[in-house]
Amino acid sequence: MRGEVRFIGRVTRAGEDLSTIEVLPEYCDGLYRLGEHRRLVILYWFHERDDERHRGTLQVVPRRHGETELRGVFASHSPSRPNPIGLTEVELLRVEGCTLTVRGLDAFVDSPIVDIKPVSMDEDS
Amino acid sequence: MRGEVRFIGRVTRAGEDLSTIEVLPEYCDGLYRLGEHRRLVILYWFHERDDERHRGTLQVVPRRHGETELRGVFASHSPSRPNPIGLTEVELLRVEGCTLTVRGLDAFVDSPIVDIKPVSMDEDS
Repeated sequence: MRGEVRFIGRVTRAGEDLSTIEVLPEYCDGLYRLGEHRRLVILYWFHERDDERHRGTLQVVPRRHGETELRGVFASHSPSRPNPIGLTEVELLRVEGCTLTVRGLDAFVDSPIVDIKPVSMDEDS
Repeated sequence: MRGEVRFIGRVTRAGEDLSTIEVLPEYCDGLYRLGEHRRLVILYWFHERDDERHRGTLQVVPRRHGETELRGVFASHSPSRPNPIGLTEVELLRVEGCTLTVRGLDAFVDSPIVDIKPVSMDEDS
């Protein structure tokens, strides 16, 4: 079984500190009152891993953490996994029109954005 | 632009306390060493909202939090949103074969599973 993901925007700047996300005009109404939240979860697409080789990878040796042994992709943050979806928690600095400026985005320029969610309704509202 | 999501399993039991997730046999190798993690993020599919009406919803009045005013879907956890992906953090109790028993899963029986990720490599390893 499969589902269809519609990209709602993309990363337009990926800096060490600040990054920007541009939401497509047709989805921009969905940002209403986003500015009331300080921490967001961003789901994005590892578009450079969206092929059979990377999507068929089920075990990896994670490079980031100095590991030397295999680990299942669901027990890792490997971008090679059956669904090339990345998750990163960011700090929202501002919303101007359809553009979000955030801190802490662990994605590359041009990464398609899949979803934006507040970290928690209860904490922020 | 669009992407394809492949469902890797489904929720087989959704209890107030304990829930179970059954990962499809062809993805089961991806669970290797999952048991070393205690907290997981589960991405699942709101399969009952996967239609144009719900995916076209950009603003909602959230019911859960006693709100009475509109809010953009990206500033809410509404299951009606352009991509019907839900995110929930759970406690992993055990892995037996391809079956995970977890606590805190906020999904219905039969919800397709999109991804499983450890909450943080650094905290758990």
